[in-house]
Amino acid sequence: MNATIVTIGDEILIGQITDTNSGYIAKELDKIGVRVTEMLSISDDRQHIIDTLKGLQNKVDFVLITGGLGPTKDDITKKTLCDYFEDTFVRNKAVEEHIVALFTQMNFAVTQVNRDQALVPSKAIVLKNKYGTAPGMWMQKEQTVFVSMPGVPYEMKAIIAEELIPKIVKEFKRPFILHQTILTYGQGESIVAKRIEAWEDSLPDFIKLAYLPSPGRVRLRLTGRGSDEQQLRSTIDDLVKKLYELIGDIIVGIEEDETIEVVLGKLLTQKGKTVATAESCTGGKIAEVITSISGSSNYFRGSVVSYATDTKVSILGVKQSVIDTYSAVSVQVAEAMAQGVQQLIKADFAIATTGNAGPSKGDADATVGTVCIAIATPKGVFSEQFNFGQPRMKVIDRTVNKGLEMLLKEILKNY
Amino acid sequence: MNATIVTIGDEILIGQITDTNSGYIAKELDKIGVRVTEMLSISDDRQHIIDTLKGLQNKVDFVLITGGLGPTKDDITKKTLCDYFEDTFVRNKAVEEHIVALFTQMNFAVTQVNRDQALVPSKAIVLKNKYGTAPGMWMQKEQTVFVSMPGVPYEMKAIIAEELIPKIVKEFKRPFILHQTILTYGQGESIVAKRIEAWEDSLPDFIKLAYLPSPGRVRLRLTGRGSDEQQLRSTIDDLVKKLYELIGDIIVGIEEDETIEVVLGKLLTQKGKTVATAESCTGGKIAEVITSISGSSNYFRGSVVSYATDTKVSILGVKQSVIDTYSAVSVQVAEAMAQGVQQLIKADFAIATTGNAGPSKGDADATVGTVCIAIATPKGVFSEQFNFGQPRMKVIDRTVNKGLEMLLKEILKNY
Repeated sequence: MNATIVTIGDEILIGQITDTNSGYIAKELDKIGVRVTEMLSISDDRQHIIDTLKGLQNKVDFVLITGGLGPTKDDITKKTLCDYFEDTFVRNKAVEEHIVALFTQMNFAVTQVNRDQALVPSKAIVLKNKYGTAPGMWMQKEQTVFVSMPGVPYEMKAIIAEELIPKIVKEFKRPFILHQTILTYGQGESIVAKRIEAWEDSLPDFIKLAYLPSPGRVRLRLTGRGSDEQQLRSTIDDLVKKLYELIGDIIVGIEEDETIEVVLGKLLTQKGKTVATAESCTGGKIAEVITSISGSSNYFRGSVVSYATDTKVSILGVKQSVIDTYSAVSVQVAEAMAQGVQQLIKADFAIATTGNAGPSKGDADATVGTVCIAIATPKGVFSEQFNFGQPRMKVIDRTVNKGLEMLLKEILKNY
Repeated sequence: MNATIVTIGDEILIGQITDTNSGYIAKELDKIGVRVTEMLSISDDRQHIIDTLKGLQNKVDFVLITGGLGPTKDDITKKTLCDYFEDTFVRNKAVEEHIVALFTQMNFAVTQVNRDQALVPSKAIVLKNKYGTAPGMWMQKEQTVFVSMPGVPYEMKAIIAEELIPKIVKEFKRPFILHQTILTYGQGESIVAKRIEAWEDSLPDFIKLAYLPSPGRVRLRLTGRGSDEQQLRSTIDDLVKKLYELIGDIIVGIEEDETIEVVLGKLLTQKGKTVATAESCTGGKIAEVITSISGSSNYFRGSVVSYATDTKVSILGVKQSVIDTYSAVSVQVAEAMAQGVQQLIKADFAIATTGNAGPSKGDADATVGTVCIAIATPKGVFSEQFNFGQPRMKVIDRTVNKGLEMLLKEILKNY
């Protein structure tokens, strides 16, 4: 059982918008054992759309299409799909009522253009778009099911989660896919590869290994495919056990789909502890990463982004003399920031960052790439200085990852 | 002159990683008049890669490939490319020296696996990878140039900006592409479309219009293609002038590639004014959007994310009695937060948000979707209450956009 994802929109091909829909769809399909063979982004062009649909016809089980369903003239997906199926439009009563209700709720007048979004090809099965006006459409031709959805992410996501996935699960038999990702921190991809070479060579055919490196960390993903879930799971469990024997020193967690912020969140919840951040060079990104996890209000107390140097003194209570003596980018200032925010916001733990992410030098004289990170705990404070090189984006990402990692390791070890 | 972008990696097809490389590449190509016909994401599979390359051979001028160049066994792009070109590997001295220098600088030992990243097909022209070990490779076959680059975003970006684009510009003649995007706030896509219907029908053939809606705003993008830059520019200027006559009341800016945060940043810089934020339901996202603009340290003073309700009192100085009387989600609390952060961080302007983004109810009794936004200015404070519906992501995005819009409009009007 496989699928190809097709995104329609010139705004993607000129780089004005990044397609995040395909990743979401792929993840949801993967969970139910539907393999994504390919993702395509194509233009709002009738012929291009038709050629693409023809090329996929009978090659894959599902073609999932997003985009081009809006009410305006540049939205041509629905018309093109209707032509491809040699079909005609009919007005769908339920969809029209839903459109009217949506507009009424928001106190907007319903125009004819809005009402006409209830026109769907007669052969289409409608998938309800809870949050928007353009319905999803399910249409089968020979061996392939074509599903068209709006490109607005939250509308598309609700259709996938509440309409499409349940329908596929109910109507199709699928194989079993199992992923296990092992999170390692602190060593590069080639060194990790060297250490597990013999283990990697011994992997059975139905298990695939992938290295997913990003600044400061490497994730190892094992993927098993087959019909016997139990056999897959026990094989992967055995492999992970052997991996711990080889590189247990750099493994920080096992995840099925977990990042360090998820692991940290679970740990804080479980211990009933809270965290705050005081951020300079990361500009609030650690807080943003922490709060991206739903339920984070249980352990995240808040954050101070002290972007201007004087706010480190006036809000976080860092002594001016410490800044003058050691400079704004120093472990001493990072530690004072961490303890300052810990007291100010009344959190058990705090992460503080100060550094020079570049490209130009900031308030302090530190070399571009220099970053100091401090962790305040109920028992005290500690810090470390790093050089994360260049460019800016890498420095910020490595600082975020390293700060979360320092806190996670501290809690695992001492709390 | 056209190009297809191919991203290689199973991690993309299972949704573990979102491909942001293609968007960046597309944007850079578009600027120099190379049209992207399609973006493809395919698996780390030898046959799949070869079939894809064959399918694109002589169909497009450029095939830009990212991913699969790492030093580990799952990285098969280089070997596959070498086979496709019926070529053999040679060791590139300059690349090897660069690899050794990179590792020496970071105090890491160089392994043989690292050194072997200097092996490249003999027919390849090397594009220097300043920040990493896997070089870019430029290989021509008949009518098509194939360029292979690493998938690590900052490595790929440096190769594109400093090696690839200059090489294309120098060696190929290209047509001219001009985009103009008009930013509107406050009305839905279908209403905007209705208001400009006659204008849209009158557009010449070489000008294309696209609607780019997102929560709270619609961008209208005009794209012209041709050989006469002057004619394109004057046609688009005339069209924009007419558009102002039709919908001037909802246009907040003209951009070639500008978002509201860029427009706001320019305005604050120009006026020599500063801004701070106090955020509850947006969790720091307004600060993050503001600081995503390079140069924002000139006008962004900092932020307090008062995630826990008591921090609104203890840090921002909101009176407990105001919270008790009006509840945490109220215009009164939003105004007190805005003025609190304005004084605390010493900024000219401040944006404050408090609301219930859902999915469950928070500290306050407000309905899910209720948001209060306040703007503090040197002359006072004002606020507004909204209902942004559901889901959570939409509520947060609309709050961010609305907060920036309220501040922008206020500065444009009164400062």
